[in-house]
Amino acid sequence: MSLTLAARTRHMTSSAIREILKLTERPGVLSLAGGLPSPDSFPLDALAHASERVWRTQGAQAMQYANSEGLMPLREWIAQRVSLPQWTVRPEQVLVTTGSQQGLDLLGKVLLDPGCKLLVEQPTYLGALQAFSPYEPAFQAWRADEQGPDPLDLARMSGAYGASGQVGSDAIRAAYLVPSFQNPTGHAIGAPRRAEIAAELNAHHVTLIEDNPYGELWFDEPPPAPIAASAPHHTVYLGSLSKVLAPGLRIGYVVTPPDEAPGALDLRARLLQAKQASDLHTPGFNQRLVLQLLSDGFDLDAHVATVRQRYKAQRDAMAQALNHHLPDDCAWQVPQGGMFFWVQGPEGFDAGASLPAAVERGVAYVPGAAFYVEAPQQARRQMRLSFVTLSVEQIHEAVKRLAAHLGGEGRRAC
Amino acid sequence: MSLTLAARTRHMTSSAIREILKLTERPGVLSLAGGLPSPDSFPLDALAHASERVWRTQGAQAMQYANSEGLMPLREWIAQRVSLPQWTVRPEQVLVTTGSQQGLDLLGKVLLDPGCKLLVEQPTYLGALQAFSPYEPAFQAWRADEQGPDPLDLARMSGAYGASGQVGSDAIRAAYLVPSFQNPTGHAIGAPRRAEIAAELNAHHVTLIEDNPYGELWFDEPPPAPIAASAPHHTVYLGSLSKVLAPGLRIGYVVTPPDEAPGALDLRARLLQAKQASDLHTPGFNQRLVLQLLSDGFDLDAHVATVRQRYKAQRDAMAQALNHHLPDDCAWQVPQGGMFFWVQGPEGFDAGASLPAAVERGVAYVPGAAFYVEAPQQARRQMRLSFVTLSVEQIHEAVKRLAAHLGGEGRRAC
Repeated sequence: MSLTLAARTRHMTSSAIREILKLTERPGVLSLAGGLPSPDSFPLDALAHASERVWRTQGAQAMQYANSEGLMPLREWIAQRVSLPQWTVRPEQVLVTTGSQQGLDLLGKVLLDPGCKLLVEQPTYLGALQAFSPYEPAFQAWRADEQGPDPLDLARMSGAYGASGQVGSDAIRAAYLVPSFQNPTGHAIGAPRRAEIAAELNAHHVTLIEDNPYGELWFDEPPPAPIAASAPHHTVYLGSLSKVLAPGLRIGYVVTPPDEAPGALDLRARLLQAKQASDLHTPGFNQRLVLQLLSDGFDLDAHVATVRQRYKAQRDAMAQALNHHLPDDCAWQVPQGGMFFWVQGPEGFDAGASLPAAVERGVAYVPGAAFYVEAPQQARRQMRLSFVTLSVEQIHEAVKRLAAHLGGEGRRAC
Repeated sequence: MSLTLAARTRHMTSSAIREILKLTERPGVLSLAGGLPSPDSFPLDALAHASERVWRTQGAQAMQYANSEGLMPLREWIAQRVSLPQWTVRPEQVLVTTGSQQGLDLLGKVLLDPGCKLLVEQPTYLGALQAFSPYEPAFQAWRADEQGPDPLDLARMSGAYGASGQVGSDAIRAAYLVPSFQNPTGHAIGAPRRAEIAAELNAHHVTLIEDNPYGELWFDEPPPAPIAASAPHHTVYLGSLSKVLAPGLRIGYVVTPPDEAPGALDLRARLLQAKQASDLHTPGFNQRLVLQLLSDGFDLDAHVATVRQRYKAQRDAMAQALNHHLPDDCAWQVPQGGMFFWVQGPEGFDAGASLPAAVERGVAYVPGAAFYVEAPQQARRQMRLSFVTLSVEQIHEAVKRLAAHLGGEGRRAC
């Protein structure tokens, strides 16, 4: 006998993005690939100040083991921040996670059986596919139109209208989506479509995993309320401090349905067990740092407003650069928030095959095919461009290089 | 349809210890239950100083996304610290994890299939059982004698001597053990037994998961070299900074076999994918804090020596108190390192059933049954006592209360 790996490892994949990020560390490459927030947006002075206080007043507690749920004051703050007039979240519903990526892993662990059906947008967040894949669900593409995921498809897949007319064993276990400024498309689902999806969740008791890391990064007007606000009994909601404060903290959270929702307490208990088993708890120093920052009077809303302003200027720069430089037969929509443009290159362009040539020209992007469960033909032409890491000047230069690539080697490469 | 949980959740359990810790937060209870290092042992001044420098010189990097492997200088330092004259570990073999608990979860994810056999000591570390259980292995009790786990049982379970005389499909997938100052028993496996186990690993190509959080906490003489040093191709080694620096940092590590070991590169790649999918990366601030502490000239060896001294005094106090107070029909061995005494109470004592009465008396412990896959009859009498959290005076008082419990209600409770 020899080293044998678990069968589930066959379903595991490396993040194409992380592999590409390594490529783009070459000097001179302007990378539109990474989803890295601009480091200028981190409130370092305030964090350093809060850190000094944590060491002075609660260093020993910060270095000790902590509970698995997360610190109660942080859960209280998250519950308050997430709550809306129409959606009251209680601290008991909040589980602090080591980034929202961990929330996805924990949900995969407690919700997904091998072969069970999981409905996902196409394209969808690559990190979610990576988190769920080891639990071997059968991913189902959620049909969509211009408004977003189709609520009737959700109803159909819920087993409500099975061939036999009965609620079937063929029913999906859950659905996953990123409703606001999605990664990779930048698309935000409007209020009417959200209401329709919520109505189907409520009618057919389908579980939705609603992942909302980008909701606060709106440029012109806030996105509609989360779907969880209209279907709280059937939605597990994920959020993160990575995009509004700093990803290096690795602080995310899961909001489970309220106590009275069927199965909610069981789900919550299982998630907590999974959290204990996964890393015991999210580092206490990092949690206390955030709490200290807030109790020092740091105005997170004002801070997020400055991040929005910065990203909006970068978004505008990229919109202008794309308009100015890209060949006519490219297509994209201008995102109203978030961090990404989703661009379809010219007929015959192969984003994946020609990436090395693009890097040679000094520009990088993420090929679109990585974001699909089963990539359709046109996915080869698609790519994700991040506008938040480079400066306005760099964005113009990067898009110029991309345009040369699309009109030159990129096109010839096919 | 309604909320359905994954079948694997049936195998998930909450940590009895964490539930008990909640009980013992009542004022006046002296808890011997927790495995919490003494907070006085955290080098807070040095950490605060290092933290200030991290913010000043690399704050933006510390708050940004980082790579999943861990920071290379930290992997280099770990490789160097783990290496021995007879065992060279290269930085590429090191994966930084969010505590060594995460290492166990990742290994479960990439190594264990439902129903595959995993050999574990009895009793064994509860957190390992929790980490592995969701992957649904068939735990097999590793027969042991006074020297520790039986190498012949390992050989037998490897399938080398199957009924059919062939290497069988019945073979274990891997074995797990804590060789030095085990949790919960405090037992350290001696050099001859380690050599015998290593020989069987090498002969039958069995994979060992060697978990060594306590190895540096020796009181009289260091434990023998890890088994990995004698069977590097067949051992995945886990370590942690939790016990030598501070658990709140959540920094652990996995050392995979060297490149030339069969399957090593594949295992390493899968572990890295699992790490990406689980939390993207261990918080960068925490990693940089440790690196800064070390490059500031902090002498970790000298620090660990003071921790050893402190724990030894506490161990001595507990040994004395147990001798002095406990009824004659109790049994224990004095551990030569680590954090725990493993005590067998009098005939008829039920550690689990009588715990609430003990807490009423103002003392808490962890009942032994929790540490078994299948608890034998005598497990009911066993309990784990930690000596590292309470002061010498408190230890005496706690053991006095425990003795009263064992001689009083505890005994009557059966």
